[in-house]
Amino acid sequence: MAHINENYTKLPGSYLFAEIGRRSAAFAASHPDADIIKMGIGDVTRPLAPAVIEAMHQAVEDLATSEGFHGYGPEQGYDFLREAILHGDYLDRGIELEVDEIFISDGAKSDCGNIGDIFATANRVAVCDPVYPVYVDTNAMAGRAGYYDAAAEAWTDIIYMPTTAENHFSPALPSQDADLIYLCSPNNPTGTVLGFEELEQWVTYANNHDAVIFFDSAYERFVTEAGIPRSIYEIPGAKTCAIEFRSFSKTAGFTGARCGYTVVPKALVRDGVSLNALWNRRQTTKFNGASYVIQRGAAAIYTPDGAKQVEETIDYYRTNARIIKEGLEAAGLEVFGAVNSPYIWCKTPNGMGSWDFFDLLLEKAHIITTPGAGFGPAGEGYIRLTAFSDREATQTAMARIQQLLGCA
Amino acid sequence: MAHINENYTKLPGSYLFAEIGRRSAAFAASHPDADIIKMGIGDVTRPLAPAVIEAMHQAVEDLATSEGFHGYGPEQGYDFLREAILHGDYLDRGIELEVDEIFISDGAKSDCGNIGDIFATANRVAVCDPVYPVYVDTNAMAGRAGYYDAAAEAWTDIIYMPTTAENHFSPALPSQDADLIYLCSPNNPTGTVLGFEELEQWVTYANNHDAVIFFDSAYERFVTEAGIPRSIYEIPGAKTCAIEFRSFSKTAGFTGARCGYTVVPKALVRDGVSLNALWNRRQTTKFNGASYVIQRGAAAIYTPDGAKQVEETIDYYRTNARIIKEGLEAAGLEVFGAVNSPYIWCKTPNGMGSWDFFDLLLEKAHIITTPGAGFGPAGEGYIRLTAFSDREATQTAMARIQQLLGCA
Repeated sequence: MAHINENYTKLPGSYLFAEIGRRSAAFAASHPDADIIKMGIGDVTRPLAPAVIEAMHQAVEDLATSEGFHGYGPEQGYDFLREAILHGDYLDRGIELEVDEIFISDGAKSDCGNIGDIFATANRVAVCDPVYPVYVDTNAMAGRAGYYDAAAEAWTDIIYMPTTAENHFSPALPSQDADLIYLCSPNNPTGTVLGFEELEQWVTYANNHDAVIFFDSAYERFVTEAGIPRSIYEIPGAKTCAIEFRSFSKTAGFTGARCGYTVVPKALVRDGVSLNALWNRRQTTKFNGASYVIQRGAAAIYTPDGAKQVEETIDYYRTNARIIKEGLEAAGLEVFGAVNSPYIWCKTPNGMGSWDFFDLLLEKAHIITTPGAGFGPAGEGYIRLTAFSDREATQTAMARIQQLLGCA
Repeated sequence: MAHINENYTKLPGSYLFAEIGRRSAAFAASHPDADIIKMGIGDVTRPLAPAVIEAMHQAVEDLATSEGFHGYGPEQGYDFLREAILHGDYLDRGIELEVDEIFISDGAKSDCGNIGDIFATANRVAVCDPVYPVYVDTNAMAGRAGYYDAAAEAWTDIIYMPTTAENHFSPALPSQDADLIYLCSPNNPTGTVLGFEELEQWVTYANNHDAVIFFDSAYERFVTEAGIPRSIYEIPGAKTCAIEFRSFSKTAGFTGARCGYTVVPKALVRDGVSLNALWNRRQTTKFNGASYVIQRGAAAIYTPDGAKQVEETIDYYRTNARIIKEGLEAAGLEVFGAVNSPYIWCKTPNGMGSWDFFDLLLEKAHIITTPGAGFGPAGEGYIRLTAFSDREATQTAMARIQQLLGCA
């Protein structure tokens, strides 16, 4: 008799964005004339860079001829892309890595979800609160989370590290021993960043405890301020304790094209075993490489033209983020993030619940946001807005919020 | 202290194709002038169909404009592709399914590897012997295989079902209770097929035992003979016991483009839980959808032009398979498969070991094959050849083998 993975049955109801989608669809159905502006899910809207488009067309053309055809590629990704990443994102910034420490994938969500495969079930997981739900749900599925306590809105075996205005969005080191620690900077959902000293403290903790840091830097290209680390490997000692996840989704608009990468240093060893070798085994056994066409497109980001074009698009979103920050502040709201991030983390007015504020903005301003409570208990009292809409919609949204809150 | 998944440390050395690659590279390095013909790994060589190329170009163009841009798609795949598959591969062939029973992915290897996520560790796995190594290795990683017994070349907790000329490549029902049963038809590596009566017997077994069949029909488009099932759902009762994996890799040359799909019927329930719902949860949490560009390309396979073009390419490979079968037979070898499959399963001459015959063909005929022993103990005494080379190379290879074996 086949039995299911019973950990799945412990998962609470619907995924956050499914619930947002449900509420938004219901509102749209009952208000067909409403001009709804989407600032909820973190999906980009600007077209791919011309250099990327050109490279993808060329790659499609390659597949049209016997001479140019590419069948199975290396599961770890093509060297043309791994080398471009190695130089563009690491060596040129003074970070020493080797090409076989970089693994190309179909996106950071897959890698963040699959990385648990190479670790024992018994590891204790620590996450920031609020947090990207994938970190928690994938560990719950793997049996590392214990049981979901609906009253506490928390899993019994997960260590939650509150990350709020009170601690300046820098979580304290856990008092319990944490084995697998998820950090995300620039942070999803709060849009805030961790500085050198803060990351140094985490690297020291992880090396001292033989823990492993999963460092999600999917949004590093949005960093504008000097002195903010964009890679965990800028911190001395990180190569013996950290795995880094990167994505082209927000960097270059690849949310639909699908490509990302994960760095597993060869110096990272636990139980006497190289995690680089384990991840290589996982990927070669359970994955067959990212699409050739898409890898060619991703490599074009590292050409001079591609880099310039990508930067222009990111600047467009950065300006949106500034407009949102200033617009919300003009509406009398307290705002975090936005400076080094496409995410704006906004305190609800007058202690309003985050789902209540979500509903208010949907119903009265026709704006879809993300309620902070959806990211964890410490997200209560906040909403997240994203800078990925177009300029006009972003400005319109701010005008509506100002009017709604009586500040226009 | 973080601990690794110790099941990974039980995996024996290198993956089959890595070892073949190593031996082949060593030979090529020491014989730089040798014209080596690759008939080992099952990778296609013909370009993508023009209709697919056109659709991919159009999809790339979509991503170049704000109006046509596609960001995150449904994790389950776009309806344009799911509907095309539903009609083209199922409804039009008289098989009732619904669109939300079809999940698009980046390929069947990922799905075959990831499907274990939704099942308990304690399930007992049964595989054919010889077998596609991914089925076994992924279960070993998940802790379902016990320990690897190097002397027996087998895992202690896996049920191996010998599938050889002696039982006409139709494995007997296991005497032990099997919970998760992998079947592949047309088979990789043997190229043989299971008929209606044989599959009926498996469906009856699975329903009687509440087992689940993982039916890999990645090669179904190669079936030429009438009366051979191309989907497990042609068998009454299969929807309550079987998951089906399909791939565009061999169907339409997508080994480098990456796209496949998995069918999980809603009628398939274990422990009172819908496996369709579990797989949906797995995919929405740990996967972000296949690339938009590639899904558009895959959908073009189902247009009249695309279908015709794809069929022409498959016919090209079918002819290669016939040339190999006849060529090997003319060389005095005993041959299986090839008729409904791109794989040719060839008995080694005079009881020669399969790695020995591999080495002989590499060194004396400059042909790369796959030793049957690499697919499991019952593969000893066979080699696998693939029909995916170009016509001239295929003919040349057969001439060389005939000469080598003294029959030309």
